[in-house]
Amino acid sequence: MAPLITLTTDFGTRDPYVAELKGVLLSQGPEALRVVDLSHELDPFDVHAAALFVRAAVPRFPAHTVHVVVVDPGVGSRRRALIVERGDSLLVGPDNCVFSYLYDGSEVVYEIDPARLGARPISATFHGRDVFAPVAAQLATGAPPSALGSRIDVYERMVFPMVDMQGDVLHGRVIHVDRYGNLITNIAEGTLRSFLGLDERAFTLVLGDHTIRSLSTHYAEARPGELLALVGSSGLIEVAAREASASRLLAAEVGRAIRVQRPS
Amino acid sequence: MAPLITLTTDFGTRDPYVAELKGVLLSQGPEALRVVDLSHELDPFDVHAAALFVRAAVPRFPAHTVHVVVVDPGVGSRRRALIVERGDSLLVGPDNCVFSYLYDGSEVVYEIDPARLGARPISATFHGRDVFAPVAAQLATGAPPSALGSRIDVYERMVFPMVDMQGDVLHGRVIHVDRYGNLITNIAEGTLRSFLGLDERAFTLVLGDHTIRSLSTHYAEARPGELLALVGSSGLIEVAAREASASRLLAAEVGRAIRVQRPS
Amino acid sequence: MAPLITLTTDFGTRDPYVAELKGVLLSQGPEALRVVDLSHELDPFDVHAAALFVRAAVPRFPAHTVHVVVVDPGVGSRRRALIVERGDSLLVGPDNCVFSYLYDGSEVVYEIDPARLGARPISATFHGRDVFAPVAAQLATGAPPSALGSRIDVYERMVFPMVDMQGDVLHGRVIHVDRYGNLITNIAEGTLRSFLGLDERAFTLVLGDHTIRSLSTHYAEARPGELLALVGSSGLIEVAAREASASRLLAAEVGRAIRVQRPS
Repeated sequence: MAPLITLTTDFGTRDPYVAELKGVLLSQGPEALRVVDLSHELDPFDVHAAALFVRAAVPRFPAHTVHVVVVDPGVGSRRRALIVERGDSLLVGPDNCVFSYLYDGSEVVYEIDPARLGARPISATFHGRDVFAPVAAQLATGAPPSALGSRIDVYERMVFPMVDMQGDVLHGRVIHVDRYGNLITNIAEGTLRSFLGLDERAFTLVLGDHTIRSLSTHYAEARPGELLALVGSSGLIEVAAREASASRLLAAEVGRAIRVQRPS
Repeated sequence: MAPLITLTTDFGTRDPYVAELKGVLLSQGPEALRVVDLSHELDPFDVHAAALFVRAAVPRFPAHTVHVVVVDPGVGSRRRALIVERGDSLLVGPDNCVFSYLYDGSEVVYEIDPARLGARPISATFHGRDVFAPVAAQLATGAPPSALGSRIDVYERMVFPMVDMQGDVLHGRVIHVDRYGNLITNIAEGTLRSFLGLDERAFTLVLGDHTIRSLSTHYAEARPGELLALVGSSGLIEVAAREASASRLLAAEVGRAIRVQRPS
Repeated sequence: MAPLITLTTDFGTRDPYVAELKGVLLSQGPEALRVVDLSHELDPFDVHAAALFVRAAVPRFPAHTVHVVVVDPGVGSRRRALIVERGDSLLVGPDNCVFSYLYDGSEVVYEIDPARLGARPISATFHGRDVFAPVAAQLATGAPPSALGSRIDVYERMVFPMVDMQGDVLHGRVIHVDRYGNLITNIAEGTLRSFLGLDERAFTLVLGDHTIRSLSTHYAEARPGELLALVGSSGLIEVAAREASASRLLAAEVGRAIRVQRPS
């Protein structure tokens, strides 16, 4: 089977950085190496957005895929470069929490040893091209992680932003605003259902001055421009507006508080 | 021959939606399935822009390509999910007119039956990932449309925006503004030539206060910043400015009226 | 080995132009033709930005890659269409300097003869689709450049913007601003080191009212928001700000003067 390598970066494509990285991959890999763009439009330096992206995307890919993720404000410093074995996937990127939301205790983490990459020069500002791409090409073509680095037990991680339950109020917040202006919260569907219990009709969501009194199943349930709340495609509660931007309507960005109430 | 699947969406790539869709495709298809990005930058919810895009792009692809098009504000509602056989291409997407400009009466249309996709869960907000991608993977690997849905005779369609001919005036309008600011109109080259007859030099185009008195063949015929009119690469009349944006110069957007006059 | 074709354009992907070009390539090439997107987000009409992009990207790709570059404000005019043999790469695009920074005197240049492409129609506004893509597909599948055009000795070129050394001052300028807001200058690392001689600590860089007194090795050496100067990943001096945009902080764009001083 042809090895598959995915790319997720904050590089944009106006600059040659993605092209250089692809050139390195396609130079080192064999004929059938397949490179798939996931995103190059992550917000610059936004490690948390990258972690959320990775959480949603990686589990959809087939076994043995190598995922390269480069959102790397600490490039060139002493931050380490990692290979993570997680289930049947391999992840390659900086040790800065981008993979945190895939960690479940079963992951095996290696610190890449650049000396094992051969005698090529390594730019202090572009490890995507000079470290992560060569490592990914070698992994995809069969090198074991242990040939490229040493196993480590301590590495950066963060926890998924928790909701806070206080009596009859569930306090959450907006953790991502997508292209449509949908406000994605940290409230998981399961958390909501166990909070509301049997009486799902009792759902009330409050964001600033706005109150939404029911949980919809899809966007077209509302009238054009009207706000609604629903379970999004990643299993998180989101606030949306039909064919409009909830973010713009509510002037709401990442970090905005949101609460769900049940009758007392 | 390796099956080819193209992707055209309004998802952008800042969010994980395209990545998730690709993961599903690459998980289900065999090794040699080829996924080609056409666009993920269509304007959100803009079904008409998507239909124009599809009209220009699909006919350029080889036989047996499967085209997935997801601009889908009605996702999760009762709008149907379609497979369209059109010539030797297969189209997969929502029943909301995105394929209209390819319809010529020869198309064969199927309503997808999600029950035939197996027992996977289907999000009410992301049929791209949960319905269209699995259907495309199955079609690309040889499943006949009739295995995934039932033939239907009634489906959404729209007609290409008509020009209006009144005496010596041809009334058209801007139907798309491209990245360069070129104003693409609904006036086809053939319509223009039969309207003008033998005397092509009589061409006069009026847009607001501006008059263009000749039909150019290419952009560099004008001086930098100067307006011109020509037959664009899709066979439609467009108003452009050399190395500048006609849209900005004329403050003209989609819908703007345009007229061509001939001497009375 | 499966032939590789890269695409670099200023088309964007909101419009169908990239899709049409890919359709032509995939229609003409055999099953295993591989098309790789490098960029479609170059600034419209910006030939110099394209030349810088090509300079950084092309050398990273394996032998026998065919690179299609379409930033082509002169399309349809008498500007020529080129095939360039450069080392073991093939370049296809307009004769407007986009390949200049790869020229080293060893290049062999052909003017494409559209008559040799067969009887297909050629739009006067879209040679990417109608000339460059068919040529690239034929080159990738083994046609020699001489079958598609005639060798020429005179073609457009520009020289890399020179620095100016006056006594103890090296005068350079910003030639590119990248997505992060890093200001990339025309001062090569080698030029800087020979200018400063042994005493690298003597480095002082001045941009407008701002002075940077040391050469860093990586971005994380500065405090968040602080300015620094370093050797970027293409071997050119750049001015950056840690996790911030130097371009915004300094209100500096392409063309901005920059100078490096040594003690007199």
